[in-house]
Amino acid sequence: MSPAIHNRAFAELGLDFVYLAFRVEEVKAAMEGMRALENFTGLSVTIPHKTAVIPHLDDIATVDATIGSVNTVVKTGGRVKGLGTDGPGARRALTECGVALEDRDILLLGSGGAARAIAFDLAFHARPSALTILGVIPDELDALERDLKQKTEVSVTSALVTDASLEQNVENAQVLIHATPVGMHPNTEESVVPDNLLRSDLAVMDIVYNPLETRLLKDAAKRGAKTISGLEMFVNQAVLQFEAWTGQEAPVEVMREVVLANLG
Amino acid sequence: MSPAIHNRAFAELGLDFVYLAFRVEEVKAAMEGMRALENFTGLSVTIPHKTAVIPHLDDIATVDATIGSVNTVVKTGGRVKGLGTDGPGARRALTECGVALEDRDILLLGSGGAARAIAFDLAFHARPSALTILGVIPDELDALERDLKQKTEVSVTSALVTDASLEQNVENAQVLIHATPVGMHPNTEESVVPDNLLRSDLAVMDIVYNPLETRLLKDAAKRGAKTISGLEMFVNQAVLQFEAWTGQEAPVEVMREVVLANLG
Repeated sequence: MSPAIHNRAFAELGLDFVYLAFRVEEVKAAMEGMRALENFTGLSVTIPHKTAVIPHLDDIATVDATIGSVNTVVKTGGRVKGLGTDGPGARRALTECGVALEDRDILLLGSGGAARAIAFDLAFHARPSALTILGVIPDELDALERDLKQKTEVSVTSALVTDASLEQNVENAQVLIHATPVGMHPNTEESVVPDNLLRSDLAVMDIVYNPLETRLLKDAAKRGAKTISGLEMFVNQAVLQFEAWTGQEAPVEVMREVVLANLG
Repeated sequence: MSPAIHNRAFAELGLDFVYLAFRVEEVKAAMEGMRALENFTGLSVTIPHKTAVIPHLDDIATVDATIGSVNTVVKTGGRVKGLGTDGPGARRALTECGVALEDRDILLLGSGGAARAIAFDLAFHARPSALTILGVIPDELDALERDLKQKTEVSVTSALVTDASLEQNVENAQVLIHATPVGMHPNTEESVVPDNLLRSDLAVMDIVYNPLETRLLKDAAKRGAKTISGLEMFVNQAVLQFEAWTGQEAPVEVMREVVLANLG
């Protein structure tokens, strides 16, 4: 979907840019080529190259070096910098929907790549009072908690997902971020969180955007909770890429329309 | 002008290609990047990289290896091949305008890069009875004649441009190809060939396309000669590039219109 979003946004602002999709196996050569093609301004990095690209960058934001992956590369004055926009995109989606993060207890479900990016971004930039992470892969979950403790000052705890851990931690949280694939098409009736735990003073974000309204978000809305769909994170991570490449304010509404049209 | 021509032609045929202009200093890295960006299908090579690119190719047409330069690169099944389309473009312009080359005496004016490409293409593919080259740079002219004699079977002679050499060789030729910058904007009143040497049974091609009708072509037309403008060579070299990249027949008329619109 990225070519559709960014090309439409370039056109909207009349910018002489084009976004193209390239299959890549040789990351080193691709990055050398990006340097050699002088007006090649930036790129997105997708799985499986988000970590492999790092040795080929001149600069990386501290938070992204800590996360160990980037999804965006921008070349400025011959220097190639990497950054991640998934975590900042999630945070921007929350704050633009009016969800306060500072001094709040945030519950993060999941410990994979997206959860890791969101956790570090929150730890670096959002000043939550506490961050709790529930996951199902013990090694990955432990590593995330350990890295957060070693490399940031956030107050973090983690536990395996159980009925008991969910009950206790949803109750304690003001913000719940679901960062696992559960509920994604075609398993649209699944949710990690029992609906009776949801309540009106909880803000619930789901990073799944297909469907736009997951079972979790439906359940949360029924209970009167504020809900933020994965669409908002997806649009905002693209907005941050666009702004890194062009130095211009992104046409957010147009970009959201493209995503909606492509999802529809 | 190449982005305008090729992008218009891609659109005409509904092809999912885009042609972009990149400044390049590091040829090796650019070519490695072309390989790594897997659906990067082809490129044009311009001065000063037409020779430097050759060590980075997997294949090169014999004629282009002999010329020592290419202007086109195409990637097929992971193999990167170089070719030149200036010589074939000039030849195609001549033959499409009804100018026979086989068993004809061809007079070529100039010994630079374009003249060299045209001379070798004619020697490999056109079977002229004789090729005469007149130039003004002795070393370059001698090298071209020597290379043609060593590497092709064409009957070739060369001489410096003088009133006498022009008079004798224009008289002997059925086809005259002007491949020097003389007459190019802003020096539009200049011509290498005295107009009294031109005659109606001579075909005259000028590789200069700005202006479209050079002083040489005006003089030739007044004498009733068949004239072929540099526009035709320019369009045809682009046509041959387009066909090498896409494997489709190029929309020649549309491409010619783009060139004319950009020149106008």
